Amino acid sequence: MSWQASILTLYPDSFPGVLGVSVLDRARKEGLWSFETLNPRDFAEDKHHTVDDTPAGGGPGMVMRADVLAKTIDSLGDDPRPRLLMSPRGRPFTQAFAHDLSRGKGAVIVCGRFEGIDQRVIEARRLEEVSIGDFVLAGGEIAAAAIIEACVRLIPGVLGAPSSREEESFEQGLLEYPHYTRPRDFEGRAIPEVLLSGDHKKIAAWRRDEALKLTRARRPDLYEKYQVQSGHKKGR
Amino acid sequence: MSWQASILTLYPDSFPGVLGVSVLDRARKEGLWSFETLNPRDFAEDKHHTVDDTPAGGGPGMVMRADVLAKTIDSLGDDPRPRLLMSPRGRPFTQAFAHDLSRGKGAVIVCGRFEGIDQRVIEARRLEEVSIGDFVLAGGEIAAAAIIEACVRLIPGVLGAPSSREEESFEQGLLEYPHYTRPRDFEGRAIPEVLLSGDHKKIAAWRRDEALKLTRARRPDLYEKYQVQSGHKKGR
Repeated sequence: MSWQASILTLYPDSFPGVLGVSVLDRARKEGLWSFETLNPRDFAEDKHHTVDDTPAGGGPGMVMRADVLAKTIDSLGDDPRPRLLMSPRGRPFTQAFAHDLSRGKGAVIVCGRFEGIDQRVIEARRLEEVSIGDFVLAGGEIAAAAIIEACVRLIPGVLGAPSSREEESFEQGLLEYPHYTRPRDFEGRAIPEVLLSGDHKKIAAWRRDEALKLTRARRPDLYEKYQVQSGHKKGR
Repeated sequence: MSWQASILTLYPDSFPGVLGVSVLDRARKEGLWSFETLNPRDFAEDKHHTVDDTPAGGGPGMVMRADVLAKTIDSLGDDPRPRLLMSPRGRPFTQAFAHDLSRGKGAVIVCGRFEGIDQRVIEARRLEEVSIGDFVLAGGEIAAAAIIEACVRLIPGVLGAPSSREEESFEQGLLEYPHYTRPRDFEGRAIPEVLLSGDHKKIAAWRRDEALKLTRARRPDLYEKYQVQSGHKKGR
Protein backbone atom coordinates (compact mmCIF):
# COMPACT_ATOMS: atom_id res chain seq x y z
CA MET A 1 0.00 0.00 0.00
CA SER A 2 1.26 3.41 -0.90
CA TRP A 3 1.66 6.39 1.44
CA GLN A 4 -1.71 7.99 2.19
CA ALA A 5 -2.71 11.27 3.74
CA SER A 6 -6.24 11.57 5.16
CA ILE A 7 -6.92 15.27 5.59
CA LEU A 8 -9.70 16.50 7.89
CA THR A 9 -10.68 19.91 6.58
CA LEU A 10 -13.68 22.21 6.28
CA TYR A 11 -12.24 23.26 2.91
CA PRO A 12 -11.67 20.08 0.90
CA ASP A 13 -11.38 22.16 -2.29
CA SER A 14 -7.99 23.34 -1.01
CA PHE A 15 -6.58 19.98 -2.11
CA PRO A 16 -4.69 18.93 -4.13
CA GLY A 17 -3.96 22.62 -4.87
CA VAL A 18 -0.21 22.97 -5.18
CA LEU A 19 0.13 19.23 -4.52
CA GLY A 20 -1.44 18.77 -7.94
CA VAL A 21 1.55 20.05 -9.95
CA SER A 22 5.01 18.84 -10.96
CA VAL A 23 6.70 15.91 -9.20
CA LEU A 24 4.02 15.48 -6.54
CA ASP A 25 1.35 15.20 -9.23
CA ARG A 26 3.40 12.75 -11.27
CA ALA A 27 4.09 10.62 -8.21
CA ARG A 28 0.40 10.55 -7.33
CA LYS A 29 -0.52 9.44 -10.85
CA GLU A 30 2.11 6.70 -10.54
CA GLY A 31 0.42 5.52 -7.35
CA LEU A 32 3.34 6.38 -5.03
CA TRP A 33 1.05 8.34 -2.73
CA SER A 34 -2.58 9.38 -2.44
CA PHE A 35 -4.80 11.60 -0.36
CA GLU A 36 -8.42 11.81 0.69
CA THR A 37 -10.31 14.61 2.41
CA LEU A 38 -12.89 14.23 5.19
CA ASN A 39 -15.12 17.18 5.97
CA PRO A 40 -16.18 17.37 9.64
CA ARG A 41 -19.30 19.18 8.45
CA ASP A 42 -20.53 15.87 7.02
CA PHE A 43 -20.33 14.39 10.52
CA ALA A 44 -22.35 17.07 12.32
CA GLU A 45 -25.75 15.78 13.39
CA ASP A 46 -27.92 18.88 13.51
CA LYS A 47 -29.66 20.14 10.41
CA HIS A 48 -27.34 23.16 10.08
CA HIS A 49 -24.26 20.90 10.16
CA THR A 50 -22.75 22.95 12.97
CA VAL A 51 -19.07 22.23 13.62
CA ASP A 52 -18.25 25.10 15.98
CA ASP A 53 -19.57 26.92 19.02
CA THR A 54 -18.62 29.83 21.29
CA PRO A 55 -15.60 29.41 23.62
CA ALA A 56 -16.31 28.28 27.18
CA GLY A 57 -15.27 31.14 29.45
CA GLY A 58 -15.95 33.75 26.77
CA GLY A 59 -13.70 35.53 24.30
CA PRO A 60 -13.73 36.23 20.59
CA GLY A 61 -14.21 33.74 17.79
CA MET A 62 -15.44 30.18 17.68
CA VAL A 63 -14.05 26.79 18.73
CA MET A 64 -14.37 23.53 16.78
CA ARG A 65 -16.45 20.97 18.67
CA ALA A 66 -14.81 17.87 20.13
CA ASP A 67 -17.71 15.51 19.37
CA VAL A 68 -17.94 16.32 15.66
CA LEU A 69 -14.17 16.02 15.16
CA ALA A 70 -14.06 12.76 17.13
CA LYS A 71 -16.76 11.28 14.88
CA THR A 72 -14.81 12.33 11.79
CA ILE A 73 -11.63 10.72 13.11
CA ASP A 74 -13.46 7.58 14.23
CA SER A 75 -14.85 7.09 10.73
CA LEU A 76 -11.34 6.01 9.72
CA GLY A 77 -11.68 2.97 11.99
CA ASP A 78 -8.68 1.35 13.59
CA ASP A 79 -5.96 3.26 11.77
CA PRO A 80 -2.26 2.78 12.48
CA ARG A 81 -1.15 6.11 10.99
CA PRO A 82 -0.05 8.96 13.26
CA ARG A 83 -2.73 11.57 13.86
CA LEU A 84 -1.35 15.09 13.52
CA LEU A 85 -3.08 18.34 14.40
CA MET A 86 -1.70 21.39 12.59
CA SER A 87 -1.13 23.97 15.34
CA PRO A 88 1.35 26.75 16.10
CA ARG A 89 1.54 25.27 19.61
CA GLY A 90 2.89 21.99 18.27
CA ARG A 91 6.22 20.22 17.95
CA PRO A 92 8.27 21.92 15.24
CA PHE A 93 8.19 19.99 11.97
CA THR A 94 11.73 19.28 10.75
CA GLN A 95 13.47 17.34 8.01
CA ALA A 96 14.15 14.48 10.45
CA PHE A 97 10.42 14.39 11.28
CA ALA A 98 9.66 14.30 7.52
CA HIS A 99 11.99 11.32 7.08
CA ASP A 100 10.30 9.42 9.92
CA LEU A 101 6.82 10.14 8.64
CA SER A 102 7.68 9.30 5.03
CA ARG A 103 8.84 5.82 6.05
CA GLY A 104 5.42 4.98 7.53
CA LYS A 105 2.03 4.35 5.94
CA GLY A 106 1.02 8.00 5.82
CA ALA A 107 -0.73 10.36 8.19
CA VAL A 108 -4.11 11.53 9.39
CA ILE A 109 -3.89 15.33 9.33
CA VAL A 110 -6.41 17.51 11.18
CA CYS A 111 -6.66 21.10 9.94
CA GLY A 112 -8.00 23.47 12.58
CA ARG A 113 -9.95 26.62 11.74
CA PHE A 114 -11.44 29.41 13.87
CA GLU A 115 -9.77 30.10 17.25
CA GLY A 116 -8.82 26.47 17.68
CA ILE A 117 -10.29 23.09 18.51
CA ASP A 118 -11.71 21.74 21.77
CA GLN A 119 -8.82 20.52 23.91
CA ARG A 120 -10.69 17.34 24.89
CA VAL A 121 -10.59 15.80 21.41
CA ILE A 122 -6.83 16.44 21.26
CA GLU A 123 -6.49 14.38 24.45
CA ALA A 124 -9.16 11.74 23.81
CA ARG A 125 -7.95 10.94 20.27
CA ARG A 126 -4.27 11.52 21.07
CA LEU A 127 -3.66 14.09 18.34
CA GLU A 128 -0.05 15.15 18.11
CA GLU A 129 0.17 18.91 17.65
CA VAL A 130 2.68 19.79 14.94
CA SER A 131 3.81 23.26 13.85
CA ILE A 132 5.50 24.30 10.62
CA GLY A 133 6.77 27.55 12.15
CA ASP A 134 6.34 30.37 14.66
CA PHE A 135 3.58 32.17 12.81
CA VAL A 136 -0.21 31.96 12.68
CA LEU A 137 -2.20 30.88 9.62
CA ALA A 138 -5.93 31.20 8.93
CA GLY A 139 -6.25 27.40 9.07
CA GLY A 140 -4.21 24.21 9.01
CA GLU A 141 -4.52 23.54 5.27
CA ILE A 142 -1.25 25.16 4.13
CA ALA A 143 0.65 23.47 6.97
CA ALA A 144 -0.87 20.13 5.92
CA ALA A 145 0.25 20.72 2.32
CA ALA A 146 3.78 21.56 3.52
CA ILE A 147 4.03 18.39 5.56
CA ILE A 148 2.66 16.20 2.79
CA GLU A 149 5.01 17.70 0.20
CA ALA A 150 8.07 17.39 2.46
CA CYS A 151 7.25 13.71 3.15
CA VAL A 152 6.20 12.61 -0.32
CA ARG A 153 9.35 13.87 -2.02
CA LEU A 154 11.35 11.57 0.29
CA ILE A 155 9.44 8.45 -0.78
CA PRO A 156 11.74 6.29 -2.94
CA GLY A 157 10.97 6.78 -6.62
CA VAL A 158 9.38 10.23 -6.29
CA LEU A 159 12.52 12.24 -7.07
CA GLY A 160 14.97 10.97 -9.64
CA ALA A 161 18.27 10.12 -8.01
CA PRO A 162 18.37 9.84 -4.20
CA SER A 163 21.88 11.35 -4.51
CA SER A 164 20.23 14.67 -5.37
CA ARG A 165 19.05 14.83 -1.78
CA GLU A 166 22.26 14.11 0.08
CA GLU A 167 23.62 17.63 -0.14
CA GLU A 168 20.36 19.43 0.52
CA SER A 169 19.87 21.71 3.46
CA PHE A 170 19.53 19.81 6.78
CA GLU A 171 20.50 16.40 5.37
CA GLN A 172 24.03 16.78 6.75
CA GLY A 173 22.96 19.25 9.41
CA LEU A 174 24.08 22.18 7.25
CA LEU A 175 22.47 24.69 4.91
CA GLU A 176 23.16 24.06 1.26
CA TYR A 177 26.06 25.67 -0.65
CA PRO A 178 25.31 28.20 -3.44
CA HIS A 179 24.43 27.06 -6.96
CA TYR A 180 25.56 28.41 -10.34
CA THR A 181 24.75 27.58 -13.94
CA ARG A 182 25.12 29.08 -17.42
CA PRO A 183 25.65 31.79 -18.60
CA ARG A 184 29.28 32.04 -17.50
CA ASP A 185 28.99 35.79 -17.24
CA PHE A 186 25.85 37.35 -15.79
CA GLU A 187 25.93 41.15 -15.67
CA GLY A 188 29.68 41.04 -15.07
CA ARG A 189 29.37 38.42 -12.32
CA ALA A 190 31.39 35.28 -12.97
CA ILE A 191 30.89 31.71 -11.82
CA PRO A 192 33.55 30.95 -9.13
CA GLU A 193 36.70 29.64 -10.88
CA VAL A 194 36.90 26.42 -8.89
CA LEU A 195 33.53 25.23 -10.24
CA LEU A 196 34.89 25.42 -13.79
CA SER A 197 38.16 23.65 -12.90
CA GLY A 198 36.90 20.10 -13.45
CA ASP A 199 38.72 19.12 -10.24
CA HIS A 200 36.01 17.21 -8.38
CA LYS A 201 37.91 17.00 -5.13
CA LYS A 202 38.47 20.74 -5.03
CA ILE A 203 34.85 21.39 -5.98
CA ALA A 204 33.56 19.16 -3.16
CA ALA A 205 35.87 20.91 -0.68
CA TRP A 206 34.74 24.37 -1.84
CA ARG A 207 31.06 23.41 -1.55
CA ARG A 208 31.54 22.00 1.91
CA ASP A 209 33.38 25.11 2.99
CA GLU A 210 30.63 27.37 1.62
CA ALA A 211 27.95 25.29 3.38
CA LEU A 212 29.85 25.62 6.67
CA LYS A 213 30.34 29.38 6.29
CA LEU A 214 26.71 29.95 5.34
CA THR A 215 25.40 27.88 8.24
CA ARG A 216 27.68 29.59 10.75
CA ALA A 217 26.63 33.05 9.52
CA ARG A 218 22.90 32.48 9.21
CA ARG A 219 22.04 29.74 11.64
CA PRO A 220 24.46 29.60 14.57
CA ASP A 221 21.97 27.22 16.27
CA LEU A 222 22.37 24.62 13.51
CA TYR A 223 26.12 25.19 13.30
CA GLU A 224 26.54 24.52 17.00
CA LYS A 225 24.55 21.26 16.74
CA TYR A 226 26.52 20.24 13.68
CA GLN A 227 29.83 20.73 15.46
CA VAL A 228 28.72 18.68 18.44
CA GLN A 229 27.36 15.89 16.26
CA SER A 230 30.33 15.70 13.96
CA GLY A 231 32.66 15.49 16.94
CA HIS A 232 34.41 18.81 16.35
CA LYS A 233 33.18 19.91 19.71
CA LYS A 234 32.16 17.63 22.55
CA GLY A 235 29.28 18.84 24.66
CA ARG A 236 29.27 22.48 25.62
CA MET B 1 -3.62 50.64 -2.93
CA SER B 2 -4.22 47.30 -1.30
CA TRP B 3 -1.59 44.74 -0.29
CA GLN B 4 -0.30 42.87 -3.32
CA ALA B 5 1.74 39.72 -3.74
CA SER B 6 3.56 39.19 -7.04
CA ILE B 7 4.51 35.53 -7.19
CA LEU B 8 7.23 34.29 -9.55
CA THR B 9 6.46 30.64 -10.18
CA LEU B 10 6.76 27.99 -12.87
CA TYR B 11 3.40 26.68 -11.62
CA PRO B 12 0.98 29.62 -11.69
CA ASP B 13 -1.96 27.18 -11.41
CA SER B 14 -0.92 26.59 -7.78
CA PHE B 15 -2.57 29.93 -6.94
CA PRO B 16 -4.89 30.91 -5.41
CA GLY B 17 -5.26 27.26 -4.26
CA VAL B 18 -5.93 27.33 -0.55
CA LEU B 19 -5.76 31.15 -0.65
CA GLY B 20 -9.04 30.96 -2.58
CA VAL B 21 -11.19 29.79 0.36
CA SER B 22 -12.71 31.25 3.52
CA VAL B 23 -11.53 34.58 4.96
CA LEU B 24 -8.65 35.03 2.49
CA ASP B 25 -11.04 34.61 -0.42
CA ARG B 26 -13.57 37.01 1.09
CA ALA B 27 -10.87 39.60 1.76
CA ARG B 28 -9.62 39.36 -1.81
CA LYS B 29 -13.11 39.87 -3.18
CA GLU B 30 -13.42 42.91 -0.92
CA GLY B 31 -10.23 44.31 -2.45
CA LEU B 32 -8.16 44.11 0.76
CA TRP B 33 -5.40 42.21 -1.02
CA SER B 34 -4.59 40.79 -4.43
CA PHE B 35 -2.03 38.60 -6.14
CA GLU B 36 -0.58 38.10 -9.59
CA THR B 37 1.67 35.36 -10.91
CA LEU B 38 4.65 35.78 -13.25
CA ASN B 39 6.03 32.72 -14.99
CA PRO B 40 9.79 32.88 -15.66
CA ARG B 41 9.17 30.58 -18.62
CA ASP B 42 7.48 33.50 -20.39
CA PHE B 43 10.73 35.45 -20.08
CA ALA B 44 13.06 32.81 -21.53
CA GLU B 45 14.34 33.82 -24.95
CA ASP B 46 15.08 30.52 -26.67
CA LYS B 47 12.37 28.65 -28.51
CA HIS B 48 12.14 25.92 -25.87
CA HIS B 49 11.61 28.52 -23.11
CA THR B 50 14.45 27.07 -21.08
CA VAL B 51 14.61 28.29 -17.49
CA ASP B 52 17.20 25.89 -16.07
CA ASP B 53 20.56 24.35 -16.85
CA THR B 54 23.03 21.90 -15.31
CA PRO B 55 24.95 22.99 -12.18
CA ALA B 56 28.40 24.50 -12.69
CA GLY B 57 30.88 22.10 -11.07
CA GLY B 58 28.60 19.10 -11.65
CA GLY B 59 26.15 17.31 -9.42
CA PRO B 60 22.57 16.11 -9.70
CA GLY B 61 19.55 18.12 -10.77
CA MET B 62 19.15 21.46 -12.46
CA VAL B 63 19.64 25.09 -11.45
CA MET B 64 17.35 28.01 -12.39
CA ARG B 65 19.15 30.52 -14.61
CA ALA B 66 20.05 33.96 -13.26
CA ASP B 67 19.33 35.84 -16.50
CA VAL B 68 15.79 34.51 -16.96
CA LEU B 69 14.83 35.20 -13.34
CA ALA B 70 16.38 38.68 -13.48
CA LYS B 71 14.28 39.51 -16.55
CA THR B 72 11.14 38.31 -14.78
CA ILE B 73 11.90 40.44 -11.72
CA ASP B 74 12.84 43.46 -13.86
CA SER B 75 9.48 43.31 -15.62
CA LEU B 76 7.96 44.65 -12.39
CA GLY B 77 9.86 47.92 -12.93
CA ASP B 78 10.93 50.08 -10.03
CA ASP B 79 9.06 48.27 -7.26
CA PRO B 80 9.31 49.30 -3.60
CA ARG B 81 8.12 45.95 -2.19
CA PRO B 82 10.56 43.57 -0.50
CA ARG B 83 11.77 40.77 -2.77
CA LEU B 84 11.70 37.44 -0.97
CA LEU B 85 13.14 34.15 -2.15
CA MET B 86 11.58 31.07 -0.57
CA SER B 87 14.52 28.95 0.60
CA PRO B 88 15.34 26.62 3.49
CA ARG B 89 18.61 28.56 3.83
CA GLY B 90 16.74 31.76 4.58
CA ARG B 91 15.85 33.87 7.59
CA PRO B 92 13.15 32.08 9.61
CA PHE B 93 9.70 33.54 8.96
CA THR B 94 8.02 34.50 12.24
CA GLN B 95 4.88 36.26 13.45
CA ALA B 96 6.89 39.48 13.97
CA PHE B 97 8.10 39.22 10.36
CA ALA B 98 4.47 38.72 9.24
CA HIS B 99 3.42 41.88 11.11
CA ASP B 100 6.19 43.93 9.46
CA LEU B 101 5.39 42.62 6.00
CA SER B 102 1.63 43.08 6.39
CA ARG B 103 2.11 46.78 7.16
CA GLY B 104 3.83 47.39 3.81
CA LYS B 105 2.55 47.38 0.23
CA GLY B 106 2.99 43.66 -0.28
CA ALA B 107 5.81 41.43 -1.47
CA VAL B 108 7.50 40.04 -4.54
CA ILE B 109 7.88 36.33 -3.83
CA VAL B 110 10.23 34.14 -5.84
CA CYS B 111 9.46 30.41 -5.75
CA GLY B 112 12.50 28.27 -6.51
CA ARG B 113 12.26 24.83 -8.09
CA PHE B 114 14.86 22.17 -8.98
CA GLU B 115 18.11 22.15 -6.93
CA GLY B 116 17.99 25.90 -6.43
CA ILE B 117 18.56 29.15 -8.26
CA ASP B 118 21.77 30.74 -9.54
CA GLN B 119 23.41 32.58 -6.64
CA ARG B 120 24.20 35.61 -8.80
CA VAL B 121 20.58 36.67 -9.25
CA ILE B 122 20.10 36.48 -5.47
CA GLU B 123 22.94 38.97 -5.09
CA ALA B 124 22.30 41.16 -8.15
CA ARG B 125 18.58 41.62 -7.39
CA ARG B 126 19.04 41.61 -3.62
CA LEU B 127 16.60 38.78 -2.94
CA GLU B 128 16.09 38.14 0.76
CA GLU B 129 16.06 34.41 1.43
CA VAL B 130 13.21 33.47 3.77
CA SER B 131 12.43 30.05 5.24
CA ILE B 132 9.18 28.80 6.75
CA GLY B 133 10.95 25.96 8.59
CA ASP B 134 13.81 23.47 8.76
CA PHE B 135 12.50 21.12 6.11
CA VAL B 136 12.76 20.87 2.33
CA LEU B 137 9.84 21.28 -0.07
CA ALA B 138 9.61 20.43 -3.77
CA GLY B 139 9.30 24.14 -4.57
CA GLY B 140 8.65 27.51 -3.00
CA GLU B 141 4.92 27.63 -3.75
CA ILE B 142 3.63 26.29 -0.41
CA ALA B 143 6.02 28.56 1.50
CA ALA B 144 4.74 31.52 -0.54
CA ALA B 145 1.15 30.59 0.31
CA ALA B 146 2.03 30.35 4.02
CA ILE B 147 3.66 33.77 4.05
CA ILE B 148 0.81 35.40 2.13
CA GLU B 149 -1.84 33.85 4.42
CA ALA B 150 0.01 34.83 7.60
CA CYS B 151 0.35 38.43 6.38
CA VAL B 152 -3.09 38.94 4.86
CA ARG B 153 -4.96 37.84 7.98
CA LEU B 154 -3.19 40.65 9.86
CA ILE B 155 -4.40 43.37 7.46
CA PRO B 156 -7.05 45.46 9.24
CA GLY B 157 -10.54 44.40 8.20
CA VAL B 158 -9.63 40.86 7.12
CA LEU B 159 -10.50 39.16 10.40
CA GLY B 160 -13.47 40.37 12.42
CA ALA B 161 -12.31 41.80 15.72
CA PRO B 162 -8.60 42.58 16.13
CA SER B 163 -9.10 41.51 19.75
CA SER B 164 -9.35 37.92 18.51
CA ARG B 165 -5.66 38.10 17.68
CA GLU B 166 -4.28 39.44 20.93
CA GLU B 167 -4.24 36.11 22.71
CA GLU B 168 -3.02 34.04 19.80
CA SER B 169 0.22 32.12 19.89
CA PHE B 170 3.30 34.39 19.65
CA GLU B 171 1.40 37.69 20.01
CA GLN B 172 2.41 37.90 23.67
CA GLY B 173 5.44 35.70 23.20
CA LEU B 174 3.55 32.66 24.50
CA LEU B 175 1.72 29.69 23.02
CA GLU B 176 -2.04 29.91 23.28
CA TYR B 177 -4.07 28.43 26.16
CA PRO B 178 -6.42 25.47 25.51
CA HIS B 179 -9.92 26.03 24.14
CA TYR B 180 -13.21 24.40 25.13
CA THR B 181 -16.77 24.62 23.87
CA ARG B 182 -20.07 22.73 24.12
CA PRO B 183 -20.98 19.97 24.88
CA ARG B 184 -20.27 20.31 28.58
CA ASP B 185 -19.52 16.64 28.83
CA PHE B 186 -17.54 14.92 26.08
CA GLU B 187 -16.97 11.20 26.67
CA GLY B 188 -16.80 11.85 30.41
CA ARG B 189 -14.38 14.73 30.01
CA ALA B 190 -15.63 17.97 31.54
CA ILE B 191 -14.87 21.59 30.69
CA PRO B 192 -12.60 23.01 33.45
CA GLU B 193 -14.84 24.45 36.24
CA VAL B 194 -13.28 27.90 36.17
CA LEU B 195 -14.37 28.49 32.57
CA LEU B 196 -18.00 28.00 33.60
CA SER B 197 -17.72 30.27 36.67
CA GLY B 198 -18.52 33.54 34.91
CA ASP B 199 -15.67 35.14 36.89
CA HIS B 200 -13.78 36.94 34.15
CA LYS B 201 -10.79 37.81 36.29
CA LYS B 202 -10.31 34.19 37.34
CA ILE B 203 -10.78 33.00 33.77
CA ALA B 204 -8.13 35.42 32.48
CA ALA B 205 -5.72 34.30 35.22
CA TRP B 206 -6.34 30.62 34.43
CA ARG B 207 -5.74 31.15 30.72
CA ARG B 208 -2.54 33.06 31.32
CA ASP B 209 -1.33 30.36 33.65
CA GLU B 210 -2.10 27.62 31.11
CA ALA B 211 -0.32 29.58 28.38
CA LEU B 212 2.75 29.91 30.61
CA LYS B 213 2.76 26.22 31.54
CA LEU B 214 2.32 25.10 27.95
CA THR B 215 5.08 27.36 26.66
CA ARG B 216 7.49 26.27 29.37
CA ALA B 217 6.82 22.59 28.67
CA ARG B 218 6.84 22.65 24.89
CA ARG B 219 9.01 25.57 23.90
CA PRO B 220 11.62 26.39 26.54
CA ASP B 221 13.29 28.65 23.94
CA LEU B 222 10.21 30.89 23.73
CA TYR B 223 9.66 30.76 27.47
CA GLU B 224 13.19 31.96 28.14
CA LYS B 225 12.75 34.89 25.72
CA TYR B 226 9.39 35.74 27.26
CA GLN B 227 10.84 35.88 30.75
CA VAL B 228 13.67 38.14 29.67
CA GLN B 229 11.33 40.44 27.74
CA SER B 230 8.72 40.67 30.45
CA GLY B 231 11.38 41.53 32.98
CA HIS B 232 10.99 38.39 35.11
CA LYS B 233 14.56 37.57 34.37
CA LYS B 234 17.24 40.04 33.33
CA GLY B 235 19.74 38.73 30.80
CA ARG B 236 21.18 35.29 31.34
